[in-house]
Amino acid sequence: MRNLVALAALLLTSCNAPKDPLPSWNETHAKQAILAFVKNAVAQFPPAERVAVFDNDGTLWVEQPLYVQLLFAASEMKALAPQHPEWRANPNFAKIIDGPPDAILALAPADQFAAGFAVHAGRTVEEYSAAASRWLAANEHPRFKKPYTQLAYQPMLELIAHLRENGFQVYSVTGAEIGFVRVANEQAFGIPRQHVIATLLKSKFESAQLQAQPDVLLIDDGDGKPSSIQNVIGRRPILAIGNSDGDLPMLQYTANGPGPRFTAIVHHDDPEREFAYDRASPVGHLDKALDAAIASAWPVLSMKNDWRRVFPNSPQ
Amino acid sequence: MRNLVALAALLLTSCNAPKDPLPSWNETHAKQAILAFVKNAVAQFPPAERVAVFDNDGTLWVEQPLYVQLLFAASEMKALAPQHPEWRANPNFAKIIDGPPDAILALAPADQFAAGFAVHAGRTVEEYSAAASRWLAANEHPRFKKPYTQLAYQPMLELIAHLRENGFQVYSVTGAEIGFVRVANEQAFGIPRQHVIATLLKSKFESAQLQAQPDVLLIDDGDGKPSSIQNVIGRRPILAIGNSDGDLPMLQYTANGPGPRFTAIVHHDDPEREFAYDRASPVGHLDKALDAAIASAWPVLSMKNDWRRVFPNSPQ
Repeated sequence: MRNLVALAALLLTSCNAPKDPLPSWNETHAKQAILAFVKNAVAQFPPAERVAVFDNDGTLWVEQPLYVQLLFAASEMKALAPQHPEWRANPNFAKIIDGPPDAILALAPADQFAAGFAVHAGRTVEEYSAAASRWLAANEHPRFKKPYTQLAYQPMLELIAHLRENGFQVYSVTGAEIGFVRVANEQAFGIPRQHVIATLLKSKFESAQLQAQPDVLLIDDGDGKPSSIQNVIGRRPILAIGNSDGDLPMLQYTANGPGPRFTAIVHHDDPEREFAYDRASPVGHLDKALDAAIASAWPVLSMKNDWRRVFPNSPQ
Repeated sequence: MRNLVALAALLLTSCNAPKDPLPSWNETHAKQAILAFVKNAVAQFPPAERVAVFDNDGTLWVEQPLYVQLLFAASEMKALAPQHPEWRANPNFAKIIDGPPDAILALAPADQFAAGFAVHAGRTVEEYSAAASRWLAANEHPRFKKPYTQLAYQPMLELIAHLRENGFQVYSVTGAEIGFVRVANEQAFGIPRQHVIATLLKSKFESAQLQAQPDVLLIDDGDGKPSSIQNVIGRRPILAIGNSDGDLPMLQYTANGPGPRFTAIVHHDDPEREFAYDRASPVGHLDKALDAAIASAWPVLSMKNDWRRVFPNSPQ
């Protein structure tokens, strides 16, 4: 009988204990700061003003050895080259077509992106999305040997869920091209298409179909991020998280509004469980934004110290 | 006792009778077609695919004698002219500044829009929105003597509510400039900012503030409407309603998808309660889209015959 009473007391206690919304975060200052901010934001802002924005590559999922959209582009360019003999006239495209699978890594960023835009050629936006979906299902990360869509960061998935439970609208804001990243966002982070803000191409409307053209409309990186956020949401976010210099204007734009704000940088300092890189890396280059975070006392989220687990189902 | 039974029966009947979701629509074919489509769409599409798009001017609210955003622009240009002596160097701007309040009506469309873009000068996006809000509160329609935000079409407000009750996401898609129409949409139609798709200007990010520039990024009219819809929503709508030739590509894009579709034109044929205009009008020019609607058997919504009431609280 005494045991039964003790058991009942135990069950009651565990029922009453609030469920930890962020179990993959260690009990560090970062976690406490996030939870305090969300509570504060709910008290001070109506739901319409609870807008949260997250960078994608390196903030919500792995970006090393190269941005996933560019790996997709290189793969598509090799596969579609026979239908596009004109591509070989571009020496950079020829390197991708005839080189090893990682040849795109050696190109300058502008040439990498040009390849990413070229592979829309001759396909409707729906056909391009279907190709992105097929590629994501068929390919895996060279080191982690898992599909990229399973390499979202578990602590961020928990944070997104916690924000939504508290009435936030969660948007992803990425420099990658929108047709690809919409598919990836839906599958990897559960973020619906209309909440994905990304680099836009001009498009052509013909015979009641849309085709993206290899002409950029708006690069959603650097100063383009606040502009794109305004174009799509029309509101200054109150929470923003990024991990590279391209995110700095978005963080400044967010931090500069009235009332409580949360702006943070993900710092890749965990070579054992993921990667370690910052000021010297061309991919996910983090230099000025790190200085700004330190100067402004924005939390710098240490992957190594603040995250108990990195990927869904990965060992702690 | 017999009376009590009869009363109870009557109450039961009225409780069981489904509430008419579109009381300001006459019992015509148009109303039946809308109700049948919504029922069908709910059965065939998951909520994420229930996307409805509405043009603004002439579809959701009055566009005669001139698009409301341009009336706002002309008013702002007159008011702000002392701070912008450079404006007088543009002969069209000078006509607006020195002419009667309706001088902007006489300009060519491109010059009307240029004035609309110019009045962002030197103001952050937040300051511009606040100015739009003040103007909408202070000005009324020359004929109806009511604020413009009270001149939404009541049948359309009911249709928007009915679509939302059935899990649709409702977007407005307008050629007017986004900073102004976001404010108008929120107040007049209850459509939140992130569901407003409109003409975009380039913007400048400086000192953590955004300012729109008088350079167009994307005109959300004609072929620009399907492109803008793809940029913001990433999905082909299943319902689209417009009222002028600038809406035709949006209607074709919508009509051309798989499964049930609803595309319609609002026809202004009611000079007594509103206005009558189509092929000859420069404002809300409806010619090719009317031919297309007839050829494709899209409903042409007659304001005179299909709408029992035009404005909220107006006599029937």
